[in-house]
Amino acid sequence: MKLICSKANLLKGVNIVSKAVPTRTTMAILECILIDASANEIKLMANDMELGIETIIDGTIEERGIIALDAKIFSEIVRKLPDNDVTIETDASFKTVISCEKAKFNIIGKSGDDFSYIPYVERNESIVLSQFTLKEVIRQTIFSIADNDNNKLMTGELFEIEENKLRVVSLDGHRISIRYIEMKNHYDSKKVVVPGKTLQEISKIIPGSADEDVVIYITNNHIVFEFENTTVVSRLIEGEYFKIDQMLSSDYDTKVRINKRELLDCIDRATLLVKEGDKKPIIMNITDGNMELRINSFIGSMNEDIDIDKDGKDIMIGFNPKFFIDALRVIDEEEVNLYMVNPKAPCFIKDDEGKFIYLILPVNFNTAAN
Amino acid sequence: MKLICSKANLLKGVNIVSKAVPTRTTMAILECILIDASANEIKLMANDMELGIETIIDGTIEERGIIALDAKIFSEIVRKLPDNDVTIETDASFKTVISCEKAKFNIIGKSGDDFSYIPYVERNESIVLSQFTLKEVIRQTIFSIADNDNNKLMTGELFEIEENKLRVVSLDGHRISIRYIEMKNHYDSKKVVVPGKTLQEISKIIPGSADEDVVIYITNNHIVFEFENTTVVSRLIEGEYFKIDQMLSSDYDTKVRINKRELLDCIDRATLLVKEGDKKPIIMNITDGNMELRINSFIGSMNEDIDIDKDGKDIMIGFNPKFFIDALRVIDEEEVNLYMVNPKAPCFIKDDEGKFIYLILPVNFNTAAN
Repeated sequence: MKLICSKANLLKGVNIVSKAVPTRTTMAILECILIDASANEIKLMANDMELGIETIIDGTIEERGIIALDAKIFSEIVRKLPDNDVTIETDASFKTVISCEKAKFNIIGKSGDDFSYIPYVERNESIVLSQFTLKEVIRQTIFSIADNDNNKLMTGELFEIEENKLRVVSLDGHRISIRYIEMKNHYDSKKVVVPGKTLQEISKIIPGSADEDVVIYITNNHIVFEFENTTVVSRLIEGEYFKIDQMLSSDYDTKVRINKRELLDCIDRATLLVKEGDKKPIIMNITDGNMELRINSFIGSMNEDIDIDKDGKDIMIGFNPKFFIDALRVIDEEEVNLYMVNPKAPCFIKDDEGKFIYLILPVNFNTAAN
Repeated sequence: MKLICSKANLLKGVNIVSKAVPTRTTMAILECILIDASANEIKLMANDMELGIETIIDGTIEERGIIALDAKIFSEIVRKLPDNDVTIETDASFKTVISCEKAKFNIIGKSGDDFSYIPYVERNESIVLSQFTLKEVIRQTIFSIADNDNNKLMTGELFEIEENKLRVVSLDGHRISIRYIEMKNHYDSKKVVVPGKTLQEISKIIPGSADEDVVIYITNNHIVFEFENTTVVSRLIEGEYFKIDQMLSSDYDTKVRINKRELLDCIDRATLLVKEGDKKPIIMNITDGNMELRINSFIGSMNEDIDIDKDGKDIMIGFNPKFFIDALRVIDEEEVNLYMVNPKAPCFIKDDEGKFIYLILPVNFNTAAN
């Protein structure tokens, strides 16, 4: 194989497919990036068996061929090459010479035959989202997937399509994040659970333009994302997702309208008194026009007042501050509404337009001790 | 004690003195920042018994007093406060209230009586350097102090003053870095070894302006740096520094003039084939007009040619690539001169003006194997 392409193109491609290279694996071939120049285009590919990514880069094929190169070494070499045309040449024994200007690297590759190719997925009805929307939706929900594998379904996000509505849900047993998106077209109903890892990696490689689209195909076992010259194929998580609709009551006894930045900064300040692992709640004491936030820990105590608009009953309620911080950080709105029923029922954070709902369960606190 | 100062001033002061707070200590009082408002100014102070820093910040003292506050918690609180006036108030039982706008923190301080004050150092003749020069000199030499305590003197840098010349030297047994500075005034001869840690911290807190000075006082046991509102006092390292002059011969058999950036980039590329701990030398094969660099490792091999100007004999010589990278990274000159005698004698990197000398010992390599 012999091919020539610019360092910039090569690096961009390598960075994209690297996201599907597993960090730990017992199969050495999975640690490789496949360069497939067996046809008329230069395709880079990586696959960790859950998630596969391929991307086509511009360049000239002088001699067709395929080679698998260790992803870590190959990407480090590419990153450090001068900004110029790069030549990659291999021989029958997989010796690979990567040269650029006067620099010349010799490494040993592996046969492309051993590579586990990305499965072929039938592409039927396609769903179209802008890159920007998909990236935003992931950012605004991914933080509340479970951080352990105890329940596989909690490590993914529900993508639920009905007519022209997409609902994306993540939950970890203490909180639920929901984003509603209105799409341009109507589609058949679908309900799949996409691995969180896939979404995290996708959101890193989507450029995020509002004018460019991502085309999504969904089958029984796979989801495919196509954008620019890149195709991402991921397995879906099997099983039936949690029924959340019964938890989304819109009744409330207290409604608070509050400046998001003030609330976030205040909770952020309060948490510096809480060391990792010691579960001190932040207590909100909500009265007419005022929210007093308090935290007590072994280090000291902190309290602060924030002006609010309040409808309904006074309430004193405690939360894990991290859950509030996570949700408030991804909200773009300047003001948010909090809806509460009682100190043991979940609090809902909502916007005016119905784009999102963040549900957070409260924690018990001993009023006397605080 | 009660004082009021802006968050910006307080934060700046806290960041400066924090550099003298030890990361690990068995004496809890050393983990504190002392706020001394017992006289007419607000002084912050920290001291790890080797290095002490004090800085004066603007503010209003409403009630005089002294308090010692845990450095980590205090600086985190200050960092997260809103950008406004901060009030710090303490009572007789060392309860401390830090308030800013509507935020109010309560923590427990310690008595200032327990604090280990910075020793009084007599200030005689002062040496003056610009902040810029001191910061540059540290950056250009600090990397070659020893990274372990086996020989205490190697963990510091020699500051040697003779007339209007300052020479700063660091060495670790494999290499020597020397910077020569011409000063405006003439001084009495002095030779002291300053702890590397002191210099590292100093270079972080000096703003680095070319128009502002640092005033330095040296006694038998201490060195004092004064700039702006800050005073840094450090112990010196006792003992006689290594005699290096006999190693600084200016004879050579090969002189190479080379573009610094090209050489650095090339060695940087080569080292990606070398994993930490496996000591593969970079081999320079120097002939008329050309330097070929080669590296061989378990991962693969790399070679590259660089155009040079050469005087004298051809030579093939091997080095630890890290030592070359460290030196080349801190050199500002576009071109440097390398002076060599034979593959077993040190290589000197010098500029045209005699501002610096970097001496690097070569390593053995088996010509046949490479």
